[in-house]
Amino acid sequence: MTLLYEGKAKKVFEWDATSYLLEFKDSLTAFNALKKGSFEDKGRINRDIAALIFEYFLKNSIKSHYKAKHGETGMLVDKVKIIPLEVVVRNILAGSTAKKLGIAEGLVLKKPLVEFYFKNDELQDPFMSDDQILMMEIINEKEIAEVKVAALKVNTALKSLFAKTGIKLVDFKIEFGKNEKSEILLADEITPDCCRLWDEKSNEKMDKDRFRRDLGNIRESYEEVLKRLQNAI
Amino acid sequence: MTLLYEGKAKKVFEWDATSYLLEFKDSLTAFNALKKGSFEDKGRINRDIAALIFEYFLKNSIKSHYKAKHGETGMLVDKVKIIPLEVVVRNILAGSTAKKLGIAEGLVLKKPLVEFYFKNDELQDPFMSDDQILMMEIINEKEIAEVKVAALKVNTALKSLFAKTGIKLVDFKIEFGKNEKSEILLADEITPDCCRLWDEKSNEKMDKDRFRRDLGNIRESYEEVLKRLQNAI
Repeated sequence: MTLLYEGKAKKVFEWDATSYLLEFKDSLTAFNALKKGSFEDKGRINRDIAALIFEYFLKNSIKSHYKAKHGETGMLVDKVKIIPLEVVVRNILAGSTAKKLGIAEGLVLKKPLVEFYFKNDELQDPFMSDDQILMMEIINEKEIAEVKVAALKVNTALKSLFAKTGIKLVDFKIEFGKNEKSEILLADEITPDCCRLWDEKSNEKMDKDRFRRDLGNIRESYEEVLKRLQNAI
Repeated sequence: MTLLYEGKAKKVFEWDATSYLLEFKDSLTAFNALKKGSFEDKGRINRDIAALIFEYFLKNSIKSHYKAKHGETGMLVDKVKIIPLEVVVRNILAGSTAKKLGIAEGLVLKKPLVEFYFKNDELQDPFMSDDQILMMEIINEKEIAEVKVAALKVNTALKSLFAKTGIKLVDFKIEFGKNEKSEILLADEITPDCCRLWDEKSNEKMDKDRFRRDLGNIRESYEEVLKRLQNAI
């Protein structure tokens, strides 16, 4: 198989005329890969979480690039060209936006906030306004609106899924891609690497912030997320 | 007179029931006041430039807080409550946005770009999207649209004014305020402190970048801008 691209947490292989194979790795990075780590079985756990979520989405009429699981750590997906935007949806303020605007973490928003970051490691994924996206001609005005609607739809489904597991969905990052018909599809992954997940009762973090902030029990938290999702569905 | 507020380049005094007196200072700051300087007569030169521009705007149906000149360095203005947004309009990419997006300075934009920065020294005036402004309830959706239209109208008038002086209007920062009827008015100032102005022929900088980047001849450049504006009107 031809390796097309190796990212921080996944490898992308050419599979057949219409599919890529994503292989989830055990590595873990933060702060634009300045901080690096890994734990055993992370690839399998994250693949299982992502597959479970994409399958749940399918049943809830949310299309994504997901086709099927493959082996222990693999996922077959539709070939899409990734739109170079990290789309962040926030239900509760935390992380960079809370810090930037001088708001304490934990503010529950009246309605979800959608944000765009330019997917560019060299530039450290800068935050962008809609008007800057138009200026850079990344996607057009209609597509920005479509991506926002899709991101909010993902948020609604994901929030209600996690609610069943006793987990608050604080925020998450997703990516979209265009297939050969130029349809916009949810792509990449949804895992604790790119979500903030807080236990409903204890507010304990169950996501990559455990790694970012050296809170320990990373593997246990990721496994717990998977276990709760499996029980909820 | 009561001093209500002292900013980096102006003092604001209570004047009468409906007016403030702005006094333009000789000081000059950059990088959120980390770099400080001043030059003789800056207050007068900038007051003259700002007054001349606001008077030109009045003739071109652009309302602002401007009422009249006062003394050598003063300006009487309507009392407005400043909206805490720095509204930036760019015709040519330069400065922070060029750097952030990895684009070389000097790219002429197909259409002007309007940007918002949260006016907050402590937070270093972070860049904000429209959705973040709505989340923070700084202004509402209708007001964001109104401010954008007003900023673009200012851009059109200012660009054509500077074109008569052989100066390219690269970008500028303006502020808006609300009067007691909650009408949104152009406020603050327009001077070489908050515009990027490049000589049409030589591309020489005629604005605060001369101070930011230690290019020398700051006073001469500001005076030249004033002289050219006086000749053009």
